[in-house]
Amino acid sequence: MNPKRISIIGSTGSIGTQTLDIARAHKDLISVRGLAAGSKNLQLLCEQIKEFRPALVSVPDAAAVEHIKNFIGSEKLPPVEIIPGMEGLVALAEDDQSDVLVTAVVGFLGVKPTLAAIKRGKIIALANKETMVAAGHLVVELAAKHSATIVPVDSEHSAIFQSLLPSLQKNAVQTEVAKLLLTGSGGPFRTWSKEQMESATREDALKHPNWSMGAKITIDSATMMNKGLEIIEARWLFNLPVSKIQVVIHPQSILHSAVEFVDGSIVGQMGLPDMRLPIHYALFYPDRVPSERVPRMSLAAIGQLTFEEPDLEKFPCLALAREAATVDDSKACVLNGANEIVVDSFLKGEIKFVDIPRNLERVLSEHKPIKSPSLEDILDADQWARERARLVLTA
Amino acid sequence: MNPKRISIIGSTGSIGTQTLDIARAHKDLISVRGLAAGSKNLQLLCEQIKEFRPALVSVPDAAAVEHIKNFIGSEKLPPVEIIPGMEGLVALAEDDQSDVLVTAVVGFLGVKPTLAAIKRGKIIALANKETMVAAGHLVVELAAKHSATIVPVDSEHSAIFQSLLPSLQKNAVQTEVAKLLLTGSGGPFRTWSKEQMESATREDALKHPNWSMGAKITIDSATMMNKGLEIIEARWLFNLPVSKIQVVIHPQSILHSAVEFVDGSIVGQMGLPDMRLPIHYALFYPDRVPSERVPRMSLAAIGQLTFEEPDLEKFPCLALAREAATVDDSKACVLNGANEIVVDSFLKGEIKFVDIPRNLERVLSEHKPIKSPSLEDILDADQWARERARLVLTA
Repeated sequence: MNPKRISIIGSTGSIGTQTLDIARAHKDLISVRGLAAGSKNLQLLCEQIKEFRPALVSVPDAAAVEHIKNFIGSEKLPPVEIIPGMEGLVALAEDDQSDVLVTAVVGFLGVKPTLAAIKRGKIIALANKETMVAAGHLVVELAAKHSATIVPVDSEHSAIFQSLLPSLQKNAVQTEVAKLLLTGSGGPFRTWSKEQMESATREDALKHPNWSMGAKITIDSATMMNKGLEIIEARWLFNLPVSKIQVVIHPQSILHSAVEFVDGSIVGQMGLPDMRLPIHYALFYPDRVPSERVPRMSLAAIGQLTFEEPDLEKFPCLALAREAATVDDSKACVLNGANEIVVDSFLKGEIKFVDIPRNLERVLSEHKPIKSPSLEDILDADQWARERARLVLTA
Repeated sequence: MNPKRISIIGSTGSIGTQTLDIARAHKDLISVRGLAAGSKNLQLLCEQIKEFRPALVSVPDAAAVEHIKNFIGSEKLPPVEIIPGMEGLVALAEDDQSDVLVTAVVGFLGVKPTLAAIKRGKIIALANKETMVAAGHLVVELAAKHSATIVPVDSEHSAIFQSLLPSLQKNAVQTEVAKLLLTGSGGPFRTWSKEQMESATREDALKHPNWSMGAKITIDSATMMNKGLEIIEARWLFNLPVSKIQVVIHPQSILHSAVEFVDGSIVGQMGLPDMRLPIHYALFYPDRVPSERVPRMSLAAIGQLTFEEPDLEKFPCLALAREAATVDDSKACVLNGANEIVVDSFLKGEIKFVDIPRNLERVLSEHKPIKSPSLEDILDADQWARERARLVLTA
């Protein structure tokens, strides 16, 4: 096997550093061609450059370029091409010396480079949720046109991808799949009553039972908005109607998701909750390579897996996202943008946990949806959603 | 899709009738080209001929041929070619108007037709355990040479086949698979102590918790010899050493088996315990076709799946089979043949449940194993095993 040449957009974040951890463990099989990161942790990016020696680097602005240049000079490292801003991200995406683009940035920053990599027919290891939630229809259309492969890095979507690979490879997902079974732990409030949830605190909501993640996504798990956004992602990634996507509560987070085929057979993927597993899979796709980092799981040691139906009444965010996923318009984008602002407000202690869906409902009710939105429509809708959410929160 | 043309060897048995039940539900997609059955239930075979109108029929002898001919005459059915004996089974297997051969007979009768179908490069829906247990090395070698596809019909092996299909298709099972996880319910004695098992009766052993099967295979489940024979089958079907095959006890029989890949990912197949699922899958392989017969499963309705390590001390038959699977010689064949006789003796009330492994151990200890046995060696070893088992039982 020739070494995989990878580039990472968002190399200093959680997915980015875990991707490099896998690259570190497989130096003979992975070479790092490009790294891009924000200004928040330039020192970490410098250390990554020193360790992995990428040929291409992108940072947000001239000041950051200067910082990197100084580091390279002081460390007497060989020269590196540094391109600032969106131009740099797109350069990384288009670079024909790289096989796999890992899009690990948060937010809309990921959309343009993802589309650029698709146009080059690359393998995209997609960890940037916004790209699929807001611009899924554009991504899917372009990927089909350019025969690009999008390998999801979300554990649920990676599980579905692995489970339906034979159908994907012969382009028969539409005829062979009855349902995608998207599993979710149910979050910290799974066993709480609706009444108890009225008084849920920030600390209660931040206690995720299985996964250790950032604050925003942990709150999304508590509201189950996270599972809702995953329905939207799955809808586009696998090109199936929402009616064929079902959420199953699975508190142990071992079955990462499954596929029910039209013949009644269910195939699913299991593993310990560790993001390095879907990252590793995406980096080496379509091959399976022995992992030096992913912890092994024993079913007998786990002992028990349980499953339940989700409670849509207790988790109105899940219902909101389902509805937004059903209509192919700008609603999903608005839901995503408004959710970021509303969750931020909750994290600052400004609103109650149960106010999260209430505020989102208000924003959505005021939105005039645009059918099959263009990239510009999407950026506008996102901005509108954030502004309107701020207004609604202070009303 | 062109209709699949199938032939069934053993059409009046459990797998045979279930195969025809699926053909009945999919008349536009499946045509029955050939049927073969024993003399035990000729009336059922006649009804099958009337309903499915095969072109080729095989029965054991001239008397049975006469019976079928009389039926066809009295019912004024169009003429059917009827070939008696092994010649008939091989004719069904070699028939170039048939795409899939379902080998649903019990015992060594299945070996020759299976090998004949392999030489024609057909798809073989394999439900005949003896073929793989005793002659696995011959089957595998021949299948590779003639690019024949063996799709297992056992629920466990079908689950493994479905789970590792991408690796199978690119011929990468050796490098991509860490372990096969063969699940088993643990049978009726899973929760019994070793002491309690000393007094287990025929009735106790015949109470299988999940599957409804014939008496012999139900006893094999109770001793776990069944799981042991499945280890031997899996070893050949997927060409992996026994050290990579692990038995996991799973009392609910929902996860039918799974594959642990070298990257730590576990992919498994689930469904209700119903043989029509693996049969349906094998008939339509490589496509997935909506099933009219397979019952649907809801994970939330099932609620709970549990897993445990097997207890080799309580189930010595499992250890015996594991050992026989490790050495590639005539031991597996002897174990299988002797087991049939010993289980029969138990069913007749002649020996205690715990005497089953004790008698098998004695037969095995007296066997002089033959390395890479030929088909003739296998038939000899089988006969020797049965005779020696009878001797040991009466000693």
